[in-house]
Formats: sequence, structure tokens, C-alpha cells
Amino acid sequence: MEKSEKNNLLIFGKHAIREALSRETGKISKIFVLNSLAPIKYDDLKKECEAHNIPISSVPIQKLDRLSNQGNHQGFIAEISPIDYTNFFDWIEQTMVGPTTAVLLLDSIEDPHNLGAIIRSATAAGISAIIIPTQQQVPVNATVFKVSAGTAGIIPVIRVHNTEQGLKDLKLAGFSLIGLEGNAPDSLWTAEWTGPLAFVVGSEGGGINKKVAKLLDRSVSIPMEHAVESLNASVSAALISYEWKRRQA
Amino acid sequence: MEKSEKNNLLIFGKHAIREALSRETGKISKIFVLNSLAPIKYDDLKKECEAHNIPISSVPIQKLDRLSNQGNHQGFIAEISPIDYTNFFDWIEQTMVGPTTAVLLLDSIEDPHNLGAIIRSATAAGISAIIIPTQQQVPVNATVFKVSAGTAGIIPVIRVHNTEQGLKDLKLAGFSLIGLEGNAPDSLWTAEWTGPLAFVVGSEGGGINKKVAKLLDRSVSIPMEHAVESLNASVSAALISYEWKRRQA
Repeated sequence: MEKSEKNNLLIFGKHAIREALSRETGKISKIFVLNSLAPIKYDDLKKECEAHNIPISSVPIQKLDRLSNQGNHQGFIAEISPIDYTNFFDWIEQTMVGPTTAVLLLDSIEDPHNLGAIIRSATAAGISAIIIPTQQQVPVNATVFKVSAGTAGIIPVIRVHNTEQGLKDLKLAGFSLIGLEGNAPDSLWTAEWTGPLAFVVGSEGGGINKKVAKLLDRSVSIPMEHAVESLNASVSAALISYEWKRRQA
Repeated sequence: MEKSEKNNLLIFGKHAIREALSRETGKISKIFVLNSLAPIKYDDLKKECEAHNIPISSVPIQKLDRLSNQGNHQGFIAEISPIDYTNFFDWIEQTMVGPTTAVLLLDSIEDPHNLGAIIRSATAAGISAIIIPTQQQVPVNATVFKVSAGTAGIIPVIRVHNTEQGLKDLKLAGFSLIGLEGNAPDSLWTAEWTGPLAFVVGSEGGGINKKVAKLLDRSVSIPMEHAVESLNASVSAALISYEWKRRQA
């Protein structure tokens, strides 16, 4: 394994990556593939990534050369996470989901600093798990781990194919889906809820997208003065996590 | 005026800076002076900075050259803030301080991203003013303004010479001083308080320092699971600001 400039552990080459995939699936954060390769050349890899919700990204040679520090990547680089990702169905099977269970589902958080801060706050608030989609979402990389002040990995981080699928699976498992939306008439202090709960936090730029909003059981807003439109995503996530914790006390 | 690489507006040269100081004191964020200059050479400037709580920093020539992009700084650079700072005593005179007044005093926040996020959350929560010391504290520069999502300047940002002096002045003005400390037996949910209130948030690394802790009327902690030791400073500030807002509702 090699180290990138940002201290992410890397694996080069398709063969080595497939071996790692079979040995420790939960540790692979992301796979970068050279964009000039025909998809048929790595169809096997793609299928395995899809099965395990590992994001795969087609990138120019310059990106691979930079990531690998001009190393012998052979068109394939896997980024290894400092933590083990958890599979949703494994988690559901192993967990006593009940009224005091609450998870945080992040709908496309792209800034590693936000993800690190969210993991830190959610862990401190006693949230049961964090769920992230594989698309438009930063994985738990070395920067995220550092910003989380070493808390990443204490509670499970679960990857789902996309936010909609994650919400449908949560619903089937009995969770109420509660989104943070600026215009919701109920505030996080007045809304009634009964667990198990899944709180959905939208992206830094656009909040919760429309397709996702349709799947929610309820939306809550954070009251704001001075016509402030929104808060930083990590602040919103901390406020809802701690409001949940306050009600548990 | 010139622009630095980080988009801060700059003024070069002692004469121009003194002129700006007399014309618009509240806009000057920070002054950098060449460290090889004898202090007697700028005693007048130093006195004026002290009178207005403007931080002055003695730096090597390389820093001045870099800040000014090799410009003709003549050993002196002033950084202009995107906002107007407010004087504490002017604010006290103009404000109806009462039971619903609450300020946030930051005890040495060095990360511009944290300061920007704190300003955004405190403004949204309806906090009356933010108070910052001049030492070990990032001023409201272009990065802070950007991270605040343009909210910096909506509520007053007050500069005080140092945290201890700020707390003494707040105490004299009738404020109860409440610090966020990890080991406080009272939590932010159980602690009783009566306004006007000043919430004190410590630095990213060390929390509230001992000298400051002695001046507090009360400390409150944020409950944490999984032995998490602390939260990001901007998250702590948001949680206390919003707990105050919740109790106002």
C-alpha cells in the first residue's frame, strides 16, 4: 500500500484491488478508474463495487498520476478508509432497533470538514449510526478522520447505493423519516416524533433534494432570526442530534 | 487600497494607516509591522491601536512581502475588515440590556472557518452580539466573512483587549457569565440562568483557560456519549446559542 499526499492509504492496479475487495470489502472507500479504459475491461470490478456500495469514479490520467504521486497505478487506484464501513442489512440484523434508536442519513455532504464534524457530534450525541450514499458524497478518508478528532469508527458508518434507496430500506425497517428543511412549519422543538428515527440532513448547497423530500414522513425546521437562510450542514446535524438527545434525557 | 491573495483589503505604509485609523477605526482588522523596526518608530500607532483594541503584530519581512504581493508596504500593512467592529461601551450605551440579551464571548478562536460558522449560527439564533479578544484570535477577515455566508456584520462584533477584561466589563454591565466546560456538573439543559447572559466559548485546542474560568459565574457542559472529549468549537457555540433560543421561545 502507498500513501497519498493527503495521507490516504492507496492500492494500485486492478488485480491488487480485487484481492483487497475480497479480503476486506468494508475498508475500501472509493475506486478511481482511468476514463479512457473501456468499461468492459473492468466490468467484474464494477459489479463488485455496486454489490458493496463502493463508489467508483472514472477520472483522467492526470488525476491518477497525482493521486499516486506518479506511481505505477495501471489505471486503477483504490482509496482505503481509516474505518470499516458497515453493511445496512448486517447492521439491522445485529441491532436491537427500538424507540431509542436514531440514525443520521446524510444526503450528499461533499466537504470532508463537514463530514468529520458531523461524525464527531453525532457520536457524542449518542446517535446509533451514520448513513451515507455513494454518490456526491465524500467518503470517510484521512481528512474526515482527522477532523472527526479520531471519533470516526466509534459508531457504524453505513453506505447505501443512494439516498432514496437508503430511505426506503429504513422505512421497511420501521424508521420514521424526518428531514431538516428550512421552510417546514414544525420546528425541531415543537415537532412530535416517536422512534426509531432517521434524521435526514441535506447537502451544503441545496439542502434536501425534491425526490428525497417526497419520501419523508415529516420535516422540521431550525428557527432563524435576521432572515438567515440556512446554517452550516455540520451545525444543522449537531442541532438535530442534540435535540434528539435532550428528549432522551 | 490593495487586495491580498485571500481577498483581504490592505493599506500600506504608516502614514496611510494612521489616516485610516482616524477616519474609520472600526474597519481596521489588524496591523502588521516589520519586526526589525524599533518600537519607538511607531509608538504613536501602537497607542492608537491599544486605545481601539486593534491587534498589532510584529512580523518578518517575508510575511509583509507575501501579504502585499511584493508591494511597497514600507514596513506597515493594515488589514481592512469587510465589517465594522463595534466598541463595547458604545454598544452598552446604545442597547437596552435586559433579561433577553445574550452575547457570545469567544476566548481565542484561531480558525477562520470556526469564527465564520459561529457568527452564522449566533446570528440565526438571535444572539445580541459577539465579543472577541484581540490576542490569539482570528479577526473578521475575508475568509471569515465568506464562511459566515454573508451574515457577518448583521449583529455587532465587539473587540475587547483580552477575554478577562471583556468579562469584567460584562459583569459591571450586569451580565451573568456562563462558560462551556467539559467537566461542569450542570448540563446546558439543566443549568438555571437569568439574563442578561454572556456565554463563553473556549479555544479549539484548550477550551477555556484557567484565568478566565475563575471569572465565570457558572459553567455548563454538553453531555457526551462514547467518551467523546469535546466538540468542534463552532458546534459547541451553536448548541449553547440554540439552547438559549429554545428557552426564549
